[in-house]
Amino acid sequence: MAAFDLVIRNARCATAADTFNADIGIIQGRIAALGLDLAGGAEEIDAAGRWVLPGGIDAHVHFDQPTNDGSRMADDFLTGTRSAACGGTTTVIPFACQQKGQSLRAAVEDYHLRAEGKASVDYAFHLIVADPTDNVLDVELPALIREGYSSFKIYMTYDDLKLNDRQIIDVLAVARAEGAMVMIHAENTDCISWLTERLLKQGKTAPRYHAQSRPMLVEREATHRAIALSELVDVPILIVHVSGREAVEQIRWAQGQGLRIYAETCPQYLFLTAEDLGLEDDEHNHGAKCICSPPPRDKANQQVIWDGLESGLFQVFSSDHAPFCFDGPDGKKAAGADASFDKIPNGIPGVETRLPLLFSHGVLNGPLEMSQFVALTATNPAKTYGLYPRKGSIAVGADADLVIWDTGLERTIKNTDLHHAVDYTPYEGIAVSAWPAITLLRGEIVWRDGEFTGQAGKGQFLPCDLPTPAHPKTRKDNS
Amino acid sequence: MAAFDLVIRNARCATAADTFNADIGIIQGRIAALGLDLAGGAEEIDAAGRWVLPGGIDAHVHFDQPTNDGSRMADDFLTGTRSAACGGTTTVIPFACQQKGQSLRAAVEDYHLRAEGKASVDYAFHLIVADPTDNVLDVELPALIREGYSSFKIYMTYDDLKLNDRQIIDVLAVARAEGAMVMIHAENTDCISWLTERLLKQGKTAPRYHAQSRPMLVEREATHRAIALSELVDVPILIVHVSGREAVEQIRWAQGQGLRIYAETCPQYLFLTAEDLGLEDDEHNHGAKCICSPPPRDKANQQVIWDGLESGLFQVFSSDHAPFCFDGPDGKKAAGADASFDKIPNGIPGVETRLPLLFSHGVLNGPLEMSQFVALTATNPAKTYGLYPRKGSIAVGADADLVIWDTGLERTIKNTDLHHAVDYTPYEGIAVSAWPAITLLRGEIVWRDGEFTGQAGKGQFLPCDLPTPAHPKTRKDNS
Amino acid sequence: MAAFDLVIRNARCATAADTFNADIGIIQGRIAALGLDLAGGAEEIDAAGRWVLPGGIDAHVHFDQPTNDGSRMADDFLTGTRSAACGGTTTVIPFACQQKGQSLRAAVEDYHLRAEGKASVDYAFHLIVADPTDNVLDVELPALIREGYSSFKIYMTYDDLKLNDRQIIDVLAVARAEGAMVMIHAENTDCISWLTERLLKQGKTAPRYHAQSRPMLVEREATHRAIALSELVDVPILIVHVSGREAVEQIRWAQGQGLRIYAETCPQYLFLTAEDLGLEDDEHNHGAKCICSPPPRDKANQQVIWDGLESGLFQVFSSDHAPFCFDGPDGKKAAGADASFDKIPNGIPGVETRLPLLFSHGVLNGPLEMSQFVALTATNPAKTYGLYPRKGSIAVGADADLVIWDTGLERTIKNTDLHHAVDYTPYEGIAVSAWPAITLLRGEIVWRDGEFTGQAGKGQFLPCDLPTPAHPKTRKDNS
Amino acid sequence: MAAFDLVIRNARCATAADTFNADIGIIQGRIAALGLDLAGGAEEIDAAGRWVLPGGIDAHVHFDQPTNDGSRMADDFLTGTRSAACGGTTTVIPFACQQKGQSLRAAVEDYHLRAEGKASVDYAFHLIVADPTDNVLDVELPALIREGYSSFKIYMTYDDLKLNDRQIIDVLAVARAEGAMVMIHAENTDCISWLTERLLKQGKTAPRYHAQSRPMLVEREATHRAIALSELVDVPILIVHVSGREAVEQIRWAQGQGLRIYAETCPQYLFLTAEDLGLEDDEHNHGAKCICSPPPRDKANQQVIWDGLESGLFQVFSSDHAPFCFDGPDGKKAAGADASFDKIPNGIPGVETRLPLLFSHGVLNGPLEMSQFVALTATNPAKTYGLYPRKGSIAVGADADLVIWDTGLERTIKNTDLHHAVDYTPYEGIAVSAWPAITLLRGEIVWRDGEFTGQAGKGQFLPCDLPTPAHPKTRKDNS
Repeated sequence: MAAFDLVIRNARCATAADTFNADIGIIQGRIAALGLDLAGGAEEIDAAGRWVLPGGIDAHVHFDQPTNDGSRMADDFLTGTRSAACGGTTTVIPFACQQKGQSLRAAVEDYHLRAEGKASVDYAFHLIVADPTDNVLDVELPALIREGYSSFKIYMTYDDLKLNDRQIIDVLAVARAEGAMVMIHAENTDCISWLTERLLKQGKTAPRYHAQSRPMLVEREATHRAIALSELVDVPILIVHVSGREAVEQIRWAQGQGLRIYAETCPQYLFLTAEDLGLEDDEHNHGAKCICSPPPRDKANQQVIWDGLESGLFQVFSSDHAPFCFDGPDGKKAAGADASFDKIPNGIPGVETRLPLLFSHGVLNGPLEMSQFVALTATNPAKTYGLYPRKGSIAVGADADLVIWDTGLERTIKNTDLHHAVDYTPYEGIAVSAWPAITLLRGEIVWRDGEFTGQAGKGQFLPCDLPTPAHPKTRKDNS
Repeated sequence: MAAFDLVIRNARCATAADTFNADIGIIQGRIAALGLDLAGGAEEIDAAGRWVLPGGIDAHVHFDQPTNDGSRMADDFLTGTRSAACGGTTTVIPFACQQKGQSLRAAVEDYHLRAEGKASVDYAFHLIVADPTDNVLDVELPALIREGYSSFKIYMTYDDLKLNDRQIIDVLAVARAEGAMVMIHAENTDCISWLTERLLKQGKTAPRYHAQSRPMLVEREATHRAIALSELVDVPILIVHVSGREAVEQIRWAQGQGLRIYAETCPQYLFLTAEDLGLEDDEHNHGAKCICSPPPRDKANQQVIWDGLESGLFQVFSSDHAPFCFDGPDGKKAAGADASFDKIPNGIPGVETRLPLLFSHGVLNGPLEMSQFVALTATNPAKTYGLYPRKGSIAVGADADLVIWDTGLERTIKNTDLHHAVDYTPYEGIAVSAWPAITLLRGEIVWRDGEFTGQAGKGQFLPCDLPTPAHPKTRKDNS
Repeated sequence: MAAFDLVIRNARCATAADTFNADIGIIQGRIAALGLDLAGGAEEIDAAGRWVLPGGIDAHVHFDQPTNDGSRMADDFLTGTRSAACGGTTTVIPFACQQKGQSLRAAVEDYHLRAEGKASVDYAFHLIVADPTDNVLDVELPALIREGYSSFKIYMTYDDLKLNDRQIIDVLAVARAEGAMVMIHAENTDCISWLTERLLKQGKTAPRYHAQSRPMLVEREATHRAIALSELVDVPILIVHVSGREAVEQIRWAQGQGLRIYAETCPQYLFLTAEDLGLEDDEHNHGAKCICSPPPRDKANQQVIWDGLESGLFQVFSSDHAPFCFDGPDGKKAAGADASFDKIPNGIPGVETRLPLLFSHGVLNGPLEMSQFVALTATNPAKTYGLYPRKGSIAVGADADLVIWDTGLERTIKNTDLHHAVDYTPYEGIAVSAWPAITLLRGEIVWRDGEFTGQAGKGQFLPCDLPTPAHPKTRKDNS
Repeated sequence: MAAFDLVIRNARCATAADTFNADIGIIQGRIAALGLDLAGGAEEIDAAGRWVLPGGIDAHVHFDQPTNDGSRMADDFLTGTRSAACGGTTTVIPFACQQKGQSLRAAVEDYHLRAEGKASVDYAFHLIVADPTDNVLDVELPALIREGYSSFKIYMTYDDLKLNDRQIIDVLAVARAEGAMVMIHAENTDCISWLTERLLKQGKTAPRYHAQSRPMLVEREATHRAIALSELVDVPILIVHVSGREAVEQIRWAQGQGLRIYAETCPQYLFLTAEDLGLEDDEHNHGAKCICSPPPRDKANQQVIWDGLESGLFQVFSSDHAPFCFDGPDGKKAAGADASFDKIPNGIPGVETRLPLLFSHGVLNGPLEMSQFVALTATNPAKTYGLYPRKGSIAVGADADLVIWDTGLERTIKNTDLHHAVDYTPYEGIAVSAWPAITLLRGEIVWRDGEFTGQAGKGQFLPCDLPTPAHPKTRKDNS
């Protein structure tokens, strides 16, 4: 065995199954050995008394994504991946988004240009399929899947993105043929637009009406429909950003039928409620800071989401980082002042706070086992999106993406402490008791003792394999 | 690092979360290192091309258990643990069963005598609480839990074992106070006895009527009741040997409510059906070979059990090995000939076939991931019953209980190939494509190339810690 | 056609299906004709502009029922039936309650003596089977069913009344063989006693803790079990006084499975909540006035009960009139002062207020159709308990039990306006907009313009036929 | 009281609530009196020993409806209403179907012309809204509702009829504002077209593949979506022709939530299965005779439909009479021979057989009470579509639409005995034990002893009131 470049001593390790104490020996950025009293390394870090976990994978982030409505994302790959590293996330999967009329490959190429030289953590791309022409379905998608873009997201709402049922079926059929993973944003677009029109007609334009324009039944209906289309085509899907009870009940029903329906949730459904969208008379539009879709619900629904995390209904916990500033000419405040809730840029930042929030409130002071935390934030995303076994666990042969955690902190989330380019965090003021002490990307320290030590351009693009364990091994003949 | 006693080279390892290729370095019966190109060991085994998995834990077996009805178990600790080793199981948890009027401690002491010098794999004890007197509840149980008997089984049926609701509540309250795990055999005893009387009155005495005497509603009702009592006391429970859809639906409902209801199933609910209990005119009583409770159901229910394994509804997969011979004066055949289905010794053997059956039909040719197999057969039982992290995984510091598997076999289960003392197997003739090539107990080979190489008395008794992750970290105040 | 003794002109009639305007011609206490412009009668009443509905049937009342605990019911047949008449109820079905050790027939004979000469409305008897000996099951019950006692109630709680599962099954089997209807009080007795002991040990003795001693899971469990036993025996049952969501969900599930599970609810689950049981520091024990079992729940559960009435989940709406005084040596107040919530006489009065409450808040200002009101309060009870077609509707040939209603009232329920012998009503102060103007029993006026005009002894005993439509016409062979 | 034109003596009457024996006195086509020993009439019929029930209302029939695909309905108002009368149906509600681009009023006017002078039973019109332009929504629909067209059907499938979600919402919003009833054909059109294309590509063109092109999930999804849209707008809807378990479960869930979701089923889901669509190699296209949508399912689903009828899940039982000949140039056989299952005219006849089938297999030899039969086939349709109290019951003041039934028959359905213009019946050979002896329309005999005695043009058009009890009396503010 070659000499170790780095040995992390006395690590209290956790995987998605196990917890154990070991030294971690690293060679050329990979984990070469786990053992008691390993031989010395060129460098050493003593982790005694600290948890050492796999680097986080944030499988749902938006960085520098072109939009149609003129809104501008505050984070590009430079600031977005820096913020990720500082929060313990070593892999991000943003979206290469097809515009209507554009080829998918053009979107991918454009997005590589945006990432180039800027990323300080590793990254893969999901595709967003917004215009499933015959060429996209027959030529581009199959080719791109094989080239390492094996997951794609489709939308059931948003005028510039939404697919109708037939288009969804066609996309799912490609996923089935190729073994790819389809993520679905499940909200019924016609319900939303009808409610929005009614609210605006009634002069209900404040941010809080955003929540009323997207009640739970809107999400429930689309979730049920997505499940049915998945069942029709006989292909797994993953429902993204599930917000509460009604969608959860549909997913539980489907899983109980033996259908392979996967699900993701996000911090906003654990830590925010519709009340954070403000009062009716919110002249400063502060509620705009928490506008995202689906909207946060209420306390009872937060509990439903916690129960779903604990019981295994959810496989993936992501941030859905969608960074828009509050102040400034492009900001949420200005948009809200000029017009109404439906014109406010939709989305909230969270790539840096995702792990500390869940670690503190889910594990240290909550219902989750450490192994569940690792599964939800690293191992499952890696498997679901074809990055496993290179990413997502502490195992021999895997990339040495590791986070050494400080716990027992008395700390409060403040935007001034964060490293994204957004001028606020919706989690301002929430207490956390854990934060990464050291983040390692392939054996290199990118965050240590409150300092970002990574480098733009050091983050690598990761072509994705096909997801495991997404697809049925044995399935009904449906061909 | 000390020199390795044994190195297993090129192992294709799986844990409940991960799969990775590594050498496994063993020192003094424990896993000292996992790594690429580990230093040499005193002994070496090349596992190239083979899966190396944690030794199985069979958390539901009956060996040499005293009975009240005069039936005699064919297997004691000698033959039972030998059979386990040959089938890849390195830890068994049989039951120290209290007789009515007997103290729990007496049962435990008696059972230690029965095990002493005979076991060739490691073992722990579940208690069976059949007579929860004040002394048992207030003194014996708390003391025994702290001494390493942290799980106990209670029965809702069988005249000599059954507890009424109040007794169940009292036992659950002790479990809650002490952090122990309660396993529940959930069938409604009055329904069974009423149906049995009716069947016998109608002359329906053949083995097949055993299934009619315990239809699914009998199990569903008791499962719902057990869940309610668990909810009342606010303590987790584990429902053993779940057989089909109706009980599964109750468990899924409970898990969806955020209740900590765990569940076990067994090979008989995947590989047998009620038809295996024979025809009405079964003069040779062959159907008696498959009498167990709850009875096997039908093909559709087998699918429900598979779905439950795949979706995570079940945490534990055990054999419920209950060994009674078919022939001979104590045998099932004689009992059936003399009398009726309700007099036939109730239970079937399975400790040796459990892992090969699930590996072959669940993983190699079925819906389960390798990690799920490991979780169900080793890691989860270890955690559920307080044996983790010493047992149940391949991790630094754990006991080197390992199985190196042969796969790609074309083999048929035959009782003549098995090592228990029972004269039949209910799985005779079922094809399997996998079987243990080598079984290691704490680094020592106990089964290799078709030969049992273990030694009676080498198996150690394992005092159990409290289960993880069984208990709520945060719970409603119910004190 | 003979001349009419009485014609009610211009009646706005409602049955459980229809509403129509007609004259009602009555001969010898029965409805002889419904028509436009009927010929004149010896007497006439003009009902123009008023609803004329079938006289109410209160199928769940307790009058002068012997108890074991020394509590004394305030109402006997004299005051109880008077109160019924004044509230528009013309038939009551109280309970002939077997004491342990007593024969059923003795209970029936005793109860006839208690009724004799006192009743001013018609009455039938349910039996309470508290001691199902072989003689009761084999001889008494079948004979009594055939003699006109075709329904009986069994209890899953209360020490002097409760049956175990086997006893329940045996009683259900008799009901199946004879075609009788079994009413079940579904609460798990062991759960209640365990909770009660804990509360008392903690010094929690105030009336409000009554609700905590019987949470919804206690009712849900027993309901599920009752359903399972009914399914086992393949016989319909009726769950009495259903209080909220958890039991409702079990019943809906069963009905959806095609099982014949009937259900009753009561005013206390629509108009009271657990808060009416008072505060912790209730020195005057006012909360005792609302102690009944199951206890009232909360507002959300009231809505569930309303939904169940509207959607047809419930067939019967009764008062469960259980009359105990508040003041006095036998009263609830004294019992509470001396001891604790579990010693307070359990039950509340309601026979007089049942119809006005449901008419006002269910029909005139609520979700129910007039026909649903008639079905719930008269037609369905008549059919369910074998009194149809003599009782329960406005139809040719039926008894002329009729209520002419005043509506549009602004009235408040006051105990001083009621005619029972209880010194309080739990509904004090609740507004009602409807009250009977005239109540007719078999064509005779027993209540008119605020005056009771009935006569003790004029009420007749009604032997019951077998219930319709309770029993399966086609059923699985289960014999 | 005026003298009776007709008295039906000794009738064994049933309403949706009651059964009673009475003479029925009729004056000017209306029921003037129900009574014992009514005075004599100008004419008399003795019904002794026979059931006399309300004339059937078939609320889902297609007569002479213009189609876009060139198919031609075999029945117009002449033959369709004649067939209805002969089968005991005295009111039909066919559809005035808007073509895309056509005004609703034009469709209504056209349809009146088609009916004029031809109908021998009474009729109302449902509208089919296929093109909900602003003018239709804002002007035509509100006006037509007020003029007596208070129910309309919308489609979620069929290219020339289907509405998208936004159009459905808009139509529902009009229904809510006006108090109208919306019937929904719930099948997901994109799923059907995708499956159909696949089947045809595989050469699977035989009639049996029609069932495979519309599996239950297609109906389940659309049913869930329709329910969600109804919940969004807060307006009742009625799901037509529900075929089996998956849709039933959605409806039961909704009803249990307190949503006003009504449902209809039809004889084809009780008496046919997918096997009636023939074998793969059906060279004569006999399976085409049973093509309708949704397709019949299997035996287990028939039981689910029976359970739904019995438990009250369904309010309405209609025929969905859609009359296409089998032979001839327009026939199903020719269409099938030329092309494939999707080109075969879709629909089956049934207006004449609906009542005898349900009476025989539902009431006389089935699980339904007589009152349920009346409710499902007459009273509920009348209330649901605004024809009550003129139609749908036997009550003073109602139209004397009555059927005197022969029972105890041993008869087999044969198309040669039927009176429609279709050359086959899908129910050929099914035994029935009941058939109308006499059908009366407003006191006039239109069918007697096997002879049609009605007259074209005697059937009257019925303007409909708003439905009862469809709409919430109290509802959440959603305006």
